[in-house]
Amino acid sequence: MTDFKSKIKTIEWIDTYSKMVDQTVIPYEYKFVNITGGQEMFDAIRNMIVRGAPAIGIAGAHGIILFAQEGAEKISDRNEFVKWLLEKAEYMKTSRPTAVNLMWAVDKQIDVIKNSKSDIKGIIEELKTNAVRLENEDIEINKKIGDYGAEVVPKGATILTHCNAGALATVGYGTALGVVRSAYAKDNTIQVFADETRPRQQGARITTFELAMDGIPVTLITDGMCSYFMKKGMIDMVVVGADRIAANGDTANKIGTYTVAIAAKYHNIPFYIAAPLSTIDISIKSGDEIPIEERSHEEVTHINGKPVCPLKGVNVINPGFDVTPHELITGIITEKGILRPDYVKSIREIFE
Amino acid sequence: MTDFKSKIKTIEWIDTYSKMVDQTVIPYEYKFVNITGGQEMFDAIRNMIVRGAPAIGIAGAHGIILFAQEGAEKISDRNEFVKWLLEKAEYMKTSRPTAVNLMWAVDKQIDVIKNSKSDIKGIIEELKTNAVRLENEDIEINKKIGDYGAEVVPKGATILTHCNAGALATVGYGTALGVVRSAYAKDNTIQVFADETRPRQQGARITTFELAMDGIPVTLITDGMCSYFMKKGMIDMVVVGADRIAANGDTANKIGTYTVAIAAKYHNIPFYIAAPLSTIDISIKSGDEIPIEERSHEEVTHINGKPVCPLKGVNVINPGFDVTPHELITGIITEKGILRPDYVKSIREIFE
Repeated sequence: MTDFKSKIKTIEWIDTYSKMVDQTVIPYEYKFVNITGGQEMFDAIRNMIVRGAPAIGIAGAHGIILFAQEGAEKISDRNEFVKWLLEKAEYMKTSRPTAVNLMWAVDKQIDVIKNSKSDIKGIIEELKTNAVRLENEDIEINKKIGDYGAEVVPKGATILTHCNAGALATVGYGTALGVVRSAYAKDNTIQVFADETRPRQQGARITTFELAMDGIPVTLITDGMCSYFMKKGMIDMVVVGADRIAANGDTANKIGTYTVAIAAKYHNIPFYIAAPLSTIDISIKSGDEIPIEERSHEEVTHINGKPVCPLKGVNVINPGFDVTPHELITGIITEKGILRPDYVKSIREIFE
Repeated sequence: MTDFKSKIKTIEWIDTYSKMVDQTVIPYEYKFVNITGGQEMFDAIRNMIVRGAPAIGIAGAHGIILFAQEGAEKISDRNEFVKWLLEKAEYMKTSRPTAVNLMWAVDKQIDVIKNSKSDIKGIIEELKTNAVRLENEDIEINKKIGDYGAEVVPKGATILTHCNAGALATVGYGTALGVVRSAYAKDNTIQVFADETRPRQQGARITTFELAMDGIPVTLITDGMCSYFMKKGMIDMVVVGADRIAANGDTANKIGTYTVAIAAKYHNIPFYIAAPLSTIDISIKSGDEIPIEERSHEEVTHINGKPVCPLKGVNVINPGFDVTPHELITGIITEKGILRPDYVKSIREIFE
């Protein structure tokens, strides 16, 4: 396994609270916030203090512990406590609709609650143990994704990525940027091109930030530029993360990903998804069934609090994600290897 | 011809100076500036106080008058004056490299200078007359482009555009948005989707502004979203302007246009260029020969004066334009009709 050491730990359970990097203030500040309540965690997820599908999953798992701690203070009856907590768990899943890792991780905590034979205090301890296990697993999984992905990165490659599927989208290391880190550990002549990723600019703010922090060369471009550099032969491959993958390989990811995938196809450039198996939702047949979050108009109309367009007479639509159809995807890099088309078959087999 | 009345007059020669809308402050302010010197005009073009290929052409023509006025104050010998002014004219052409209308309009003024039989004062008067003629022609040409273009706009269509090829990119009316205005005059159920067009956001700032001013429905989206809406069947056609068109139809336009064209092709959506014949540079065989302006990194790294990314450890490349290859272009809407593939043939014929 790779020996690349990243400086970043995005989210971590500390005794009675969740400690996370506040991603809304990067790159202006790099600071941590402690989330101490269940509703506070719900809001932190919704307002993108924590973002990135795998990191949101861990945040959701932490949120269940926080609710459990609150429930224990006011409910003494075990059955009543469990009923109340399971309701809160379902509520936590609604904090963001697209990333399936949130539902996956909360379901892991629900399993703990339902299977526990302990008293209330014991349940809370088990939830903590499980959350820490999920955290450690997340990093291990990312390193495996990185190692598998590094195998398909050509020597000296320039890798284009969209949004941030990095250490800051996970507990650490990253999925798409995990591939970058593992590849860079083997070959320090590779480099990254980062789409800025409007409207929230996770590429400009977060991907560049974490790569610069880890000393990996990165060039920032605007979203519309990708085809220009592809045509010039300056992009060798595309690797992005995923928020939800359907059973046929259709992949929901940050808005703009689909456009990059079409451009890559037009230029015959390999386009990879890097994601843990927990991102695959085998319950849905195709991307048509993935709910797409509509976010606030201000994300489009304002940057750094200042309007960038007239505020009267102008409509806005702001879908947070799009779906890249499986036929545009060269491979899906997971912790169990790279899935290839036919995805219906390769995904079914990996879950068997 | 259409009877759509636009409220916008972008640039105009007034007696001894050029009056223009300051496009750097839209949409926060809508104000005019008076450019009174040749070097001042050079800077106004370079710094995009005036922008849009046809408007830059007129600005260049005005710049020659401004230099002529300055020359007349210090040079009394006619031959010396002409030699000095022709040097300044060549200099004016270098204010921006990509839009060929600048070279075209300045060459029109150079013809006036070279063919004039008048004295210095007379030359200046002839340059003014010629500039006003170019201004009036620009609006007439745009209205013809609009009328031809309106014929291919389906009833109730949603038209996607990139950057601003509107009244504010021309003397008035617009090329791509001239098509929109003429179509809207016939069918007020059409609407526009405007790409914001990073990095300079001419779509967010200027296209939305001028359409809202003229009461035409407009929806602002980010550049990466175009494919999402195309897939949903919400875009019926794409119409954009051009900065330079090669003899084979390859078209340079604002960076990001090429990406939109690829997405349109993938979804089988018609993709049109709207531009006057003065934008066609028959001296170059293909888009490979069009010089692409590299602009400052700050356009990418800063928005409204504030950084949007880390300023250390991050590279930036900022090409101002890209080239859409002719095979992605459904038609080129000109004042003499819509050119169709094979463009080598149709462009050659229109110039014969």
